[in-house]
Amino acid sequence: MINFQTSPDQYKHWKLSIEGAVAKLSMDVQEDETLAEGYKLKLNSYDLGVDIELADAIQRIRFEHPEVRAVVITSLKPKIFCAGANIYMLGTSSHTFKVNFCKFTNETRCAIEDDSRHSGRRYIAALNGTASGGGYELAIACDEIYLVDDGNSAVSLPEVPLLGVLPGTGGLTRLVDKRKVRRDRADVFSTLAEGLKGKRAKDWGLIDDSFPTSKFQEAIDTRVAQIVNSRSDDRFSSPSPSWERGQGRGLYGANPSASIPLPEGVEKSGIKLNTLEVKSTDDTRNYKYVRVKLKRARRYADLIVHGPDVDLPTTPEEIQKLGDSYWPLQAYRELDDLLLYLRVNEPEIGLVCLRTAGVVDKVLAVDQILAANRDHWLVREIVLHMARVLRRLDLTAKSFFTIIEPGSSFAGNLLELALSSDRIYMLDNSDEPIAIATSELNSGALPMSNGLTRLQSRFLAEPGKVDEILAQKDSFNTEAADAAGLVTFAPDHLDWEDEIRLAIEERTSLSPDALTGMEASLRFAGPETMDTKIYGRLTAWQNWIFQRPNAVGPQGALTNYGKPTQAQFDYKRT
Amino acid sequence: MINFQTSPDQYKHWKLSIEGAVAKLSMDVQEDETLAEGYKLKLNSYDLGVDIELADAIQRIRFEHPEVRAVVITSLKPKIFCAGANIYMLGTSSHTFKVNFCKFTNETRCAIEDDSRHSGRRYIAALNGTASGGGYELAIACDEIYLVDDGNSAVSLPEVPLLGVLPGTGGLTRLVDKRKVRRDRADVFSTLAEGLKGKRAKDWGLIDDSFPTSKFQEAIDTRVAQIVNSRSDDRFSSPSPSWERGQGRGLYGANPSASIPLPEGVEKSGIKLNTLEVKSTDDTRNYKYVRVKLKRARRYADLIVHGPDVDLPTTPEEIQKLGDSYWPLQAYRELDDLLLYLRVNEPEIGLVCLRTAGVVDKVLAVDQILAANRDHWLVREIVLHMARVLRRLDLTAKSFFTIIEPGSSFAGNLLELALSSDRIYMLDNSDEPIAIATSELNSGALPMSNGLTRLQSRFLAEPGKVDEILAQKDSFNTEAADAAGLVTFAPDHLDWEDEIRLAIEERTSLSPDALTGMEASLRFAGPETMDTKIYGRLTAWQNWIFQRPNAVGPQGALTNYGKPTQAQFDYKRT
Repeated sequence: MINFQTSPDQYKHWKLSIEGAVAKLSMDVQEDETLAEGYKLKLNSYDLGVDIELADAIQRIRFEHPEVRAVVITSLKPKIFCAGANIYMLGTSSHTFKVNFCKFTNETRCAIEDDSRHSGRRYIAALNGTASGGGYELAIACDEIYLVDDGNSAVSLPEVPLLGVLPGTGGLTRLVDKRKVRRDRADVFSTLAEGLKGKRAKDWGLIDDSFPTSKFQEAIDTRVAQIVNSRSDDRFSSPSPSWERGQGRGLYGANPSASIPLPEGVEKSGIKLNTLEVKSTDDTRNYKYVRVKLKRARRYADLIVHGPDVDLPTTPEEIQKLGDSYWPLQAYRELDDLLLYLRVNEPEIGLVCLRTAGVVDKVLAVDQILAANRDHWLVREIVLHMARVLRRLDLTAKSFFTIIEPGSSFAGNLLELALSSDRIYMLDNSDEPIAIATSELNSGALPMSNGLTRLQSRFLAEPGKVDEILAQKDSFNTEAADAAGLVTFAPDHLDWEDEIRLAIEERTSLSPDALTGMEASLRFAGPETMDTKIYGRLTAWQNWIFQRPNAVGPQGALTNYGKPTQAQFDYKRT
Repeated sequence: MINFQTSPDQYKHWKLSIEGAVAKLSMDVQEDETLAEGYKLKLNSYDLGVDIELADAIQRIRFEHPEVRAVVITSLKPKIFCAGANIYMLGTSSHTFKVNFCKFTNETRCAIEDDSRHSGRRYIAALNGTASGGGYELAIACDEIYLVDDGNSAVSLPEVPLLGVLPGTGGLTRLVDKRKVRRDRADVFSTLAEGLKGKRAKDWGLIDDSFPTSKFQEAIDTRVAQIVNSRSDDRFSSPSPSWERGQGRGLYGANPSASIPLPEGVEKSGIKLNTLEVKSTDDTRNYKYVRVKLKRARRYADLIVHGPDVDLPTTPEEIQKLGDSYWPLQAYRELDDLLLYLRVNEPEIGLVCLRTAGVVDKVLAVDQILAANRDHWLVREIVLHMARVLRRLDLTAKSFFTIIEPGSSFAGNLLELALSSDRIYMLDNSDEPIAIATSELNSGALPMSNGLTRLQSRFLAEPGKVDEILAQKDSFNTEAADAAGLVTFAPDHLDWEDEIRLAIEERTSLSPDALTGMEASLRFAGPETMDTKIYGRLTAWQNWIFQRPNAVGPQGALTNYGKPTQAQFDYKRT
């Protein structure tokens, strides 16, 4: 079982140090500390274990060190920044694992950009040596890239020429869409095993600058000092063209970054993220607020999220005091951990039935406090975290059906669970009315990767409905929810059990591959962003290539990498 | 060898009839008239041969029958409109062929939408019987869908539940992005083998209306009469949100449809599209203006487009008189045919070197006439056709290198060939200067699928450069072209031959699959449209699924369709 929880005192591959407003994340991969057998993590190459630590570090900087304004990512190995994902690990992994590994590393890179965009921390890739493949892709997820000029160190994407696969962590998309490298230069760069360095790398826009070894550290320090001392509103001056504004996070009015001033160092102390407690049996996994029952024989799981059980604090100060046990933070951290668990450890679970328990008004009360205090750094981080977890759900390759029954609390932020589902079933039972409700958080604070809210994505055909629904102050009973288009089916209690049972049976009988492709197509209607390009287009091509004999067959490039044998291609173009 | 040329008198599967302003395209597939052995085209199912006729018919309506305002697509088979792509054909085809087949059918559906959007013809799908799979995807490419209500006929996308693959012709994307069907309903519909009919199909937005058998023909006739009698500016009244405006065709100022009034029936006679003459040897294929030499052993081809050889007409009337021998029409028809030939018949050719021959000023003179007369129906159709051919080039899964040497004519519309290439090599030889030049056609008349011009896509990092380049009245010599960012490399004559040879050798040595995925990612930076979603995201997922054992393995759903055996899935979710 792969465990996604860690903390700095447990890190094997990264060192996180904080000095004033500067965090330094130094990569120093221990080659024998691998997540599986059969490979060594040489040259700062990584496996999922290394990336789990990176994801944890970025999360902790946000919650535990809100005073940090600049994050420097560098390496402790001489002459090498990072060699990317370990090839032998990829070569010995199952297709399913490879795909989930790439997805997690992509989410971690997007988390860096989310922090930069919405919390104003500037990420600096200080490449003290060669950054190849996933190493360069980590750099390109940062805001600025500086490369040492030692006559040797280069940036490169050698996947196509050396391995016959694509850079799997957004590299191609970020080359042309984020750094806007000219497409012919991106073509040359992406087919050049040795990569580029120095002046040409800078001229082509692959790096921001390079400095000789003797001046490298000083140059980085100078730049970091500039960032730390600059006023927050200096930082993002160039307006983006309209098609870019979304970029996965907050196209519309309620974009948190537009309205929330960057913290100016007034909150010197963050909150501690403690390890989540989880109790497991063979077929259950129970956190405090989130619980799952695995029905492995029937290939589905029942997941329930419990709403807040007591009255929650109403001021940021009280919230900060509660820390990571504050419901919106704890429940969503638990959900996040569970989603990762299900993806990697339970591949045969194809369908998750989402349920909630609790009191609608208590959830709405939480949302009201969050919305009212969105300018406070911790509240902002909590809401941005909820948004990331919900996007993780959107991007999970499992079907989701929401089941709304008496006792549920699909309101406000928890209504997003329903809206991110492939289908919503709501019991129509006049004896025991059920309610769902919206809150201010449904109007833009929790955007999908395509930059729209889930309500906007749902009502592309009737955009006016979104405002109508948000304007309704009362909750929706089943009839009203159905009339408003908020549920897929509303069977009465005579049909309810059969209908749910049949829907589950039918769904779990279908080809899991066809479902993955179908859901990836239907979940993200509307505009596209860099994020959706990475998860939709680039990932789909990479997955295709990961299946092809030219990559993974006995004569494939990935299979033969590092062996005396050479890859032999079937040269048919497809 | 598959031949893409045909004409109505040769059609086996379609009947094209024209009555005044109405064209009727009736599908009547002859089950034994297949393109390959091993399957029968029952129930109006289709193979590539059927779709080649459809593509030809749509093209001919535009050029030969400009008076047509409405196109009715229907079937001559009782109770069946179209059963989609033939499953047994798919099951017996190579992966490469399947992918190319889907791409061509997608391009044909996009050609319908291109005609509707830019030439104002309204396409009516008159479903006189069940439309399943590709049959419904053909309908959803039309502007309006009417279904007979005979108690039996339905629309459906049974690919996921029955075959374990995706609808391969844009169906999922058009469901949520064109018809804006709610995502949960799209999910239900796409997993329901038997599909939907009547009221629910209409309520969910899958069809526009349904009529009982006895009234069906009359209802279609009434609707068609309305269209034919309506004023052109009534037709497209609802403005699209900004992210949709592109939809693959003309986001920017020079969108032809915005400035060109629809023809109002004044030109009652079109021009004839004659069969292209082509002379072939084992390793050449020569049309009048377009010629290719295949270097099969080295896996590349030299393709040369000859510019106009004589002075060309300057008025629309003279152009109409010249008809299909007018250079811009003939040269691009030849290029189109050659691209299709190379895709399907020469899969091992991985790289095409694009060259031109001719006089820069003559190409510019043609563009000047085209731009000046863009309001004329025939000129508009010619320019729109050029744009479609160039998009076909963008979407071809082969590498393209443009080679610019003395005697070439990369100007105006032919410069788009260079701009659609993955790289551009231009000889730097002061003894024999070479020139490239822009024309008005580079500023928006020939958009890519992403809605941008190729110059805009090239200069995303410096959008101001596009106007600078377009404003330059003189041509660019090699030095100026290089300085302007219009070429990738400009070697001098000492390095030239070696550099080209090495570039070709290196390119053709790489994994063809990795190159396809890389090019699909790097060619389409910037905004996404329904078209790019179909070609990038949906196609990539479909290609992945087409490789998976759950579809095509011995126990896969596609393999076992129609057999007594049942598919057995590996239920791991990926």
